[in-house]
Amino acid sequence: MSSSAPVVGIVMGSDSDWPVMEAAAQALAEFDVPYEVDVVSAHRMPREMIAYGEGAAGRGLKAVVAGAGGAAHLPGMLASVTPLPVIGVPVPLKHLDGMDSLLSIVQMPAGVPVATVSVGGARNAGLLAVRMLAAHDAGLRDRMRRFQDELNEQATEKGRRLRAKAEGATGFGFGGQR
Amino acid sequence: MSSSAPVVGIVMGSDSDWPVMEAAAQALAEFDVPYEVDVVSAHRMPREMIAYGEGAAGRGLKAVVAGAGGAAHLPGMLASVTPLPVIGVPVPLKHLDGMDSLLSIVQMPAGVPVATVSVGGARNAGLLAVRMLAAHDAGLRDRMRRFQDELNEQATEKGRRLRAKAEGATGFGFGGQR
Amino acid sequence: MSSSAPVVGIVMGSDSDWPVMEAAAQALAEFDVPYEVDVVSAHRMPREMIAYGEGAAGRGLKAVVAGAGGAAHLPGMLASVTPLPVIGVPVPLKHLDGMDSLLSIVQMPAGVPVATVSVGGARNAGLLAVRMLAAHDAGLRDRMRRFQDELNEQATEKGRRLRAKAEGATGFGFGGQR
Amino acid sequence: MSSSAPVVGIVMGSDSDWPVMEAAAQALAEFDVPYEVDVVSAHRMPREMIAYGEGAAGRGLKAVVAGAGGAAHLPGMLASVTPLPVIGVPVPLKHLDGMDSLLSIVQMPAGVPVATVSVGGARNAGLLAVRMLAAHDAGLRDRMRRFQDELNEQATEKGRRLRAKAEGATGFGFGGQR
Amino acid sequence: MSSSAPVVGIVMGSDSDWPVMEAAAQALAEFDVPYEVDVVSAHRMPREMIAYGEGAAGRGLKAVVAGAGGAAHLPGMLASVTPLPVIGVPVPLKHLDGMDSLLSIVQMPAGVPVATVSVGGARNAGLLAVRMLAAHDAGLRDRMRRFQDELNEQATEKGRRLRAKAEGATGFGFGGQR
Amino acid sequence: MSSSAPVVGIVMGSDSDWPVMEAAAQALAEFDVPYEVDVVSAHRMPREMIAYGEGAAGRGLKAVVAGAGGAAHLPGMLASVTPLPVIGVPVPLKHLDGMDSLLSIVQMPAGVPVATVSVGGARNAGLLAVRMLAAHDAGLRDRMRRFQDELNEQATEKGRRLRAKAEGATGFGFGGQR
Amino acid sequence: MSSSAPVVGIVMGSDSDWPVMEAAAQALAEFDVPYEVDVVSAHRMPREMIAYGEGAAGRGLKAVVAGAGGAAHLPGMLASVTPLPVIGVPVPLKHLDGMDSLLSIVQMPAGVPVATVSVGGARNAGLLAVRMLAAHDAGLRDRMRRFQDELNEQATEKGRRLRAKAEGATGFGFGGQR
Amino acid sequence: MSSSAPVVGIVMGSDSDWPVMEAAAQALAEFDVPYEVDVVSAHRMPREMIAYGEGAAGRGLKAVVAGAGGAAHLPGMLASVTPLPVIGVPVPLKHLDGMDSLLSIVQMPAGVPVATVSVGGARNAGLLAVRMLAAHDAGLRDRMRRFQDELNEQATEKGRRLRAKAEGATGFGFGGQR
Repeated sequence: MSSSAPVVGIVMGSDSDWPVMEAAAQALAEFDVPYEVDVVSAHRMPREMIAYGEGAAGRGLKAVVAGAGGAAHLPGMLASVTPLPVIGVPVPLKHLDGMDSLLSIVQMPAGVPVATVSVGGARNAGLLAVRMLAAHDAGLRDRMRRFQDELNEQATEKGRRLRAKAEGATGFGFGGQR
Repeated sequence: MSSSAPVVGIVMGSDSDWPVMEAAAQALAEFDVPYEVDVVSAHRMPREMIAYGEGAAGRGLKAVVAGAGGAAHLPGMLASVTPLPVIGVPVPLKHLDGMDSLLSIVQMPAGVPVATVSVGGARNAGLLAVRMLAAHDAGLRDRMRRFQDELNEQATEKGRRLRAKAEGATGFGFGGQR
Repeated sequence: MSSSAPVVGIVMGSDSDWPVMEAAAQALAEFDVPYEVDVVSAHRMPREMIAYGEGAAGRGLKAVVAGAGGAAHLPGMLASVTPLPVIGVPVPLKHLDGMDSLLSIVQMPAGVPVATVSVGGARNAGLLAVRMLAAHDAGLRDRMRRFQDELNEQATEKGRRLRAKAEGATGFGFGGQR
Repeated sequence: MSSSAPVVGIVMGSDSDWPVMEAAAQALAEFDVPYEVDVVSAHRMPREMIAYGEGAAGRGLKAVVAGAGGAAHLPGMLASVTPLPVIGVPVPLKHLDGMDSLLSIVQMPAGVPVATVSVGGARNAGLLAVRMLAAHDAGLRDRMRRFQDELNEQATEKGRRLRAKAEGATGFGFGGQR
Repeated sequence: MSSSAPVVGIVMGSDSDWPVMEAAAQALAEFDVPYEVDVVSAHRMPREMIAYGEGAAGRGLKAVVAGAGGAAHLPGMLASVTPLPVIGVPVPLKHLDGMDSLLSIVQMPAGVPVATVSVGGARNAGLLAVRMLAAHDAGLRDRMRRFQDELNEQATEKGRRLRAKAEGATGFGFGGQR
Repeated sequence: MSSSAPVVGIVMGSDSDWPVMEAAAQALAEFDVPYEVDVVSAHRMPREMIAYGEGAAGRGLKAVVAGAGGAAHLPGMLASVTPLPVIGVPVPLKHLDGMDSLLSIVQMPAGVPVATVSVGGARNAGLLAVRMLAAHDAGLRDRMRRFQDELNEQATEKGRRLRAKAEGATGFGFGGQR
Repeated sequence: MSSSAPVVGIVMGSDSDWPVMEAAAQALAEFDVPYEVDVVSAHRMPREMIAYGEGAAGRGLKAVVAGAGGAAHLPGMLASVTPLPVIGVPVPLKHLDGMDSLLSIVQMPAGVPVATVSVGGARNAGLLAVRMLAAHDAGLRDRMRRFQDELNEQATEKGRRLRAKAEGATGFGFGGQR
Repeated sequence: MSSSAPVVGIVMGSDSDWPVMEAAAQALAEFDVPYEVDVVSAHRMPREMIAYGEGAAGRGLKAVVAGAGGAAHLPGMLASVTPLPVIGVPVPLKHLDGMDSLLSIVQMPAGVPVATVSVGGARNAGLLAVRMLAAHDAGLRDRMRRFQDELNEQATEKGRRLRAKAEGATGFGFGGQR
C-alpha cells in the first residue's frame, strides 16, 4: 500500500452529504488507505456517474463507497457499470429517518449487489472497504486485528469507568466480575 | 391523436413486470392513445436506459410510464435524462409488499420529479398519462369526462345490486336513499 | 406561454401548508409558468373543493398541484372531479413523519390517479407540472433541458469544492478523476 | 326502536367491500337496529357522496358506518358534510395489509373526526353504532350488557374446553382456577 | 343540555397526558357539553378503572373519552366494562411517534369496539363525543352544523390571505377563482 | 419440582390462540414443569382476568405466560395485578403480521413490565419461564444447560448434513472446517 | 436478600448507554436488590461477553439485564451462553427510534428466549428482575405489592390534582366520581 | 483461482436456511470460486461460531457470507471476530417479511461493518463476494464484466419478446426504439 494512487473512491450525490460521508474518509485515513472523494449525482450527473463507474477499476480503484439519501440510486447505478464492489451508505434525510434511503439501496435486484451499511454508517463503509483490501493484504489484516483489539480495550476501559461511576451513583459495591 | 406514432412509452426492468404493467397499456388502448412498450432495465441496461430517456422527447413521446420493484431506480433515472414527465409504478416484489418500491420511486430529490402512483397501480399510470395528454386535447378531455361518468354509473349500479343482495341477506327493507 | 392567465393551480388545505407549498410556486415562477394559489380544504370546504375541481379545466388550467397532510384527501378528491392531472404533495405533520400523508395520497383506487411526489416535495410538484406543459411546448422543453444542465453544472461545481475541502481535511492528494 | 326506518347507514366504495362490511350489518341486525346499505364511492360518486352525507341526519340516521381501502377517503369526506358521527372501517387491500387504509381514515385533521375501528373491523363498527344508540336508549343498553355477558360466557366456556383439550394433549392435571 | 351533570367523561392514564387531552375538554366546553376529567390508569389503577367503566352509564355519562400512550390499554379496557361508546386518543410518547399507541387502541378484537381518533387527536375526540350527542339532540346538531360552517369560513378567509401573500411573494396576478 | 401443583400459568384470550400457545405448554412439559392453561380474556372477562392475576401468586404460580393478538391487553393487565413476572406472547392475527400485537405488549409504561418474546414465540415463552425457575433451582439449571447442549448438537448435525447436501448440489469439495 | 453479593447483572455495549440503563440500577436499588454493572460489548468484546454469560449463574446472578441499540446482539448472545433469564432493553439510537433495537432483541429464534421490555424501558427491566426474584421470595413479593399500591396512590393523587386544574381551566364543576 | 481450497465461506444458522442460501453457492460456482458451506448458529453454537470467525482468514478465506433470520446475529458476530469482510443475507421468516432480519443485520455499530444485501438476496451475496475477489484478479474482473454483458443481453432479449407479446395483446404497432 506504498503508492498514493487512490484505491477507494468515496462519492456522494451532493456536498451536503459530506458531514455524514466524511467518516468514511477518516476511517480509510486511519488505515493509510489512499482514497479520492467526489460529488457524483445519479440524478443530476447521470452520464458522468456512468463514466465514473466504468472507469473506476481501470484507474486502480478496488472498491467504491457511495452515499445517497431518499430515493437513493447512486450506489445501485454505480454497481451496474463497474465490476468492483460498491458499498452503499444510506444517508438520512429530513423525513422518514433514512428508511427510504436504506430500502432504496439494499433491495437491489439479483445480479447487481450493493454492500449496504447502516443508516448514516459511513465510518463502517470505510472500514468495510479496508476489510476488502485486507483480505488480500496480510499487513492490512494485522492492522484490522489491532484495530479490533483497540476497540476491545476501549470498551474494557469504558467498563472500568462505568463501574466506578455506577458505584458512586447507586451506593452499591460491585465485585470486578472478570 | 390521429397519428399512430407512439406518444407514451411504457417501460419496465424485466418482462416479468408485464403482468402488472399491462394494465397501463390497456388503459391507453381504451383511450386510443398510441404507445410503445419495452424492457429498459436501469441496472442491466444503464446505457440503453439513458439513450431511451434522452431520445424519448425527440421521438414524439409526451410521457413515459416506468415500472420497477425493490430498489426501483428506473423511473428516477429516466427522469434525470428526459424533460418529459415520468410516471413511476412501484411493482411489489416477493417481500416488503411494495413499500421498498414505493419509497425508492417517490422520494426523489428536489429537481428531478417522478409522478408516482400506487403500489401495483399500472392502470392509474396509464390513466394519468391520458390526463396529461387530455390537458392539451379537448377531445381527449371529453373522453376522460365520459370515462369518469361511466365509473359513476358502474358504482351506482353496484349500489343497486348491493342493496338487493343485502336486503336478502339481512331481512331489512331499505328505502332508496337518493 | 405569453398569457398571464394561470395554467397551474396550487391548492392546499390550510395556509399553514404554505411554507411547504411555496416551493411549488417558486418552481413555476422560475419557468415563467402562470399559476394561481388558494386554500381549498377537502374537509372544511368540500363543496367549494368540488367546484374548484369541476371548473379547473374550463378556466384554462392544465394541471393542479394539491398539498395535504395526515388523512390527506384533497389531491384524490380533486382528481375525482377534474379530467386534468392532479399532482399530490404529502405534507408532513407533527407525527408519523409524513408517512400517513404519503399513503393517503398515493394509494388511490384504479380509475382516479394522483401523481404523487415525495414527502414535502412541493418543488418537485412544480417541476412536474412544468414537464407536463413542456411535453407540448418545445420552448419550455428547452428550458427544462437547460435547467437540467444547470443542475449538472452545480453538482459538478460542488464536486470541485468538495475535493478541495476533503483534501484539506484529510491530507490526501486526489487526482481529478474525470 | 319500533320503527323500521333505518337509523344507521352502512356505505362502502364498492360492492367488492361487502364481504368485509357485511359484518357491520350483521351486528346491527343482532340488536334489531334498522339500517340501510349502499355503495357511495368518494372517488367515483363524489357529488352523490356529498348528497348522501348532507341528507343523512335529515332522513333519520343517527350514525354512518363507512368502509374504504387504500387512499380511503370516504369516511372522512362524509364526516365533513354531516353533523352525525361517522365510523370508519379500514378495508385491507391486496398490498400493505390495510396500513394505508387505517392511516387514511384515522389521521383526520382537527375539526372533522372519524371514529376508526380496526383493519377489517366491520363487526365492531356495527357494535360501536349500537353503543352510540344505546347511550340514549336504556333498553338497548341492557341488550349491550347482555351481549357483553354472553361474550364472557362464551370465553369462559372456551376456557373449559381448552383446559380439557390441553390436559389431554400434555398429560398434566389442571386445577380449575376460578 | 341545560343540566350541569357531566355527560362525557375524559380520562387518561396520567396527568402528564393532560396537555394533549385538554383539547378534548376544550371542544366539549365550546359546545356547552358538561364533562368530567380524571386520571384512571389501566395499569396503576386497574380496579378503579373497572369501577369507573362499570359506573359510567349509571352516572349519566353518554360517552367516555380515554387517552393513553405506548401499550395503551385504557380505552379498550374501559370499553370492555361499559356499554357506552368509548373514544380512544393515541397519545404519542417519546419513541415510535404514537404508532404503538394507535395500534394498541384501534386493533381491538371483535365484540369490543373503541372509536379511535388520530395520534394526539384529542380535539377530535371531544368533537366526536359532541356528534354522538348531537345525533339525538337537534339543537346540538344545529350547533355542529354552524361549527362546520365556521370551519368553512375560516378556511375561505385563509384562502383570501394566502392569495394576497402569494401574490406579493411571487409577482403573479391571480384571478379570484370562485 | 416434585409436586404436580402448577407453577406456571399459561393463559390466552381465546382458545383460537391455542395452536400458537401450545408450544409454551410443550416447552414446560419437556422440563417437567407443572403448568395450567386457561382462557382469560382481558376484554371479555375483565373481572375474572383481574381475579386470575390477583390470585396467581397465592396459588403457587411463579410466572404467568399470556398470549394475545391485535390490541393485546392481556399480558399488561395481568402484570398490573400480580407481583409475578408476566411473559407476553404477541399472537399474529390476520392483518399487520403481529406488529400490532408486539407493540401492544412490549411498550408498557414504567412501573409495570411485561417480558415480551417474539411474534408467535410461545415456545420461547415457556423456555423463559423455565429459566426463571432455573435461576433458583440448580437441577433445572443443569437441565437447561443440557438442553442448550442438545441445541448445539442438533445444529452441528445439521451442518454435517448440509455439507453433504451442498457438496452434491454444487460439485465442490468442502474441507471440514472445525 | 441480606447478602450484598450481586444477584442481578446489568450490562450494556458502551458506557454511552448508561443514561438509559441507569434506571434499571435505580429500580433494583429501590428494592435493595444487589446488582453489578459493566460494559460487555457483543461486537467489541465477544470473548469476554461469552465468558460473562458463562460465569453469570456460577457467580450467583439470578438474572441478567442487557441493554443494546441498533443491531442489538448483546441480550440474545448472552442468552445463548447462560441458563439464566436475560432481560433485553432496546436502546434507541439516533435513527429509526429504537425499532431496529427492538426487533433485533425480541425476534429471537426458538430455543433461546430474551425477555424484552419497551424501547428505552430500563426501569421496567429492573422491575422485571425484581419480580423474577420476588416469585421465590415472599418478602420481596410483599414489597412489589406495596410498590404497586404506591403507583396506585400516586395515580389517584394525580387524578385529584388534574380535577382541580381542569376545573380552573375550563370552568366546569366536576363531581368526584369515585 | 486455480486452487480448490475454499476462498469464500457460506454459513447459516440452520439447514432450513439452505433453500434461500443455496443461491449464494450457485453464484460462486458460476464464477468457479471455491467455497465451503456450513451451519454455524450464533445462538446455538456461539463458541464454534467464534472459532469459525477467528479461523476464517487463516484458512485462506477472503470473505464470509452469512445468512440469518429474525434477531439475526450471525453476520454481525462473525464480523466482530474476523478481519475479513462479512456479507449478511437477511433471511425472511414467517412473520414481518424479513424487516426484522434486515435491521438486525444492517444496523451494526461503528467499528464492525456487515455488507448487507437485500431480504433473501443470497445470489447477490455470492456475486458481491465475487466482486471483492475480482477487485484483485483481472481475470475474474473480466468474467464479471462478461456476466454484466450477459445480463444486458438477456434484458434486451426480454424487451424483444415483450414488444412482440404486447403488440399482439393490444393491437398497436411499435417502432423499435433503439
